[in-house]
Amino acid sequence: MRVRKEEPLNDLPRTRLYVGSPLGPALSVPLTPTQTHHLNIVLRKNAGDAIRLFNGQDGEWLARLDRIGRSGATATVDRRLRPQTPAPDLCLLATPLKRGRMEWLVEKATELGVAEIQLILTMNTDAPRPKVDKLAIHAVEAAQQCERLDVPVLHPPAELARVLAGWPKARPLAVAAERAPSSGVPPENLAEVARRHPGGPAGLLVGPEGGLTVSELDDLRDLPFVALVGLGPRILRAETAALAALACWQCLAGDGSVSPPLRSVSTTGAC
Amino acid sequence: MRVRKEEPLNDLPRTRLYVGSPLGPALSVPLTPTQTHHLNIVLRKNAGDAIRLFNGQDGEWLARLDRIGRSGATATVDRRLRPQTPAPDLCLLATPLKRGRMEWLVEKATELGVAEIQLILTMNTDAPRPKVDKLAIHAVEAAQQCERLDVPVLHPPAELARVLAGWPKARPLAVAAERAPSSGVPPENLAEVARRHPGGPAGLLVGPEGGLTVSELDDLRDLPFVALVGLGPRILRAETAALAALACWQCLAGDGSVSPPLRSVSTTGAC
Repeated sequence: MRVRKEEPLNDLPRTRLYVGSPLGPALSVPLTPTQTHHLNIVLRKNAGDAIRLFNGQDGEWLARLDRIGRSGATATVDRRLRPQTPAPDLCLLATPLKRGRMEWLVEKATELGVAEIQLILTMNTDAPRPKVDKLAIHAVEAAQQCERLDVPVLHPPAELARVLAGWPKARPLAVAAERAPSSGVPPENLAEVARRHPGGPAGLLVGPEGGLTVSELDDLRDLPFVALVGLGPRILRAETAALAALACWQCLAGDGSVSPPLRSVSTTGAC
Repeated sequence: MRVRKEEPLNDLPRTRLYVGSPLGPALSVPLTPTQTHHLNIVLRKNAGDAIRLFNGQDGEWLARLDRIGRSGATATVDRRLRPQTPAPDLCLLATPLKRGRMEWLVEKATELGVAEIQLILTMNTDAPRPKVDKLAIHAVEAAQQCERLDVPVLHPPAELARVLAGWPKARPLAVAAERAPSSGVPPENLAEVARRHPGGPAGLLVGPEGGLTVSELDDLRDLPFVALVGLGPRILRAETAALAALACWQCLAGDGSVSPPLRSVSTTGAC
């Protein structure tokens, strides 16, 4: 009953690719050189093999490779497997992190269903500014793997004050705070804040290694859309805090009660 | 206002080490060769410099290095900074993962306050068995960094059935399930299950890449202490599922409402 990577899933191909082309019956979709290489060399796919495609707009489709070789690959779209459904409108504000941790954060945030990642620059931010187009590769790979129907949007680093100035006033922003601002009012439990905003658009802000400064926390505290939240007694690394906040928000105010699609009840095989 | 690694935190030294010796006033504590090297070469500490020590039993103590050099280092304990306080009794059951992901899981689970990690072998487990003593190094480092007062216990891999046979009947075990068992009853939202067990001992089980088989899920479902839980519509990697489940459980039934110690209100510096 051991499942190898390329065994079908409920009779569907496991290979799932994000493409930039429109998807619809009988449409021809060109694949990128990277996708072609992966299908050809790593997965040893041949013309006629089935794959799944999504583009963030038209849902997920079954398709068949009609040409694959060193010169490129194209697939022809067959039938729709899933319509595009709205995902939680959840934006993560996080600072650049050291190499390795930054890519890990993008991968995990994508799996946890973040809609956008806005990189922010704060007083204690001192990691180098990452290249957003390179990070986007990790987001695409994670989106393909975790079966979501879109890829999160990554925004290049911007000053925190500028991001906050453009923040929609009606959109709650939960800010992870390791201690109280100078007012002394302690941060709330994240669960309490999430419960006040079920299903709606929201943002989560996590500071850098070294934390947000008290003056930054004070400024944030004064904004009507901000709630300072605690994440327990331990000092979490920035990427751990982001992941914990995202997981809790999705569980309580996002799509934590929705089951994975294409995983129907079955009496055999793995789940 | 930029905080460098070795600046004091509320006038306390940032360097914090886990030791195997008893801690009490005026006691002498030998440090390991690895600790000595780190203090001597990386942090450039000298005799007389202050550090913090904890041992999982006696709380956290201020100490001073009284000898440091190539031949070793010892510290003399000064005064207690924090008493030992009980932490949530939360056990993670997870399968061995590929190198890299396994170490990440141990680091992040430690930060999120896991008390024990029991490695389990399931039908789809196919990663090599990790060396628990090597993984423990990551747990110690994460515990030192995140300011917890203990280090989680890591148990070497054991067959799932054997672990379940020894599981205390009164201890709830939430099992992450990507789909329903053959009964067709869908998994519950993790938040619902966590809310039923505030503050008590608990366990979280996450399957391998490839998932738990339906027969494993069916067997789990029949156990009186098990609740199958969903983690949303996306297919999470094993380590992501484990961290998401831990973060949610701590937020809802663990110590998510407790603030970090030694981080009192201050009008300057970072938090």
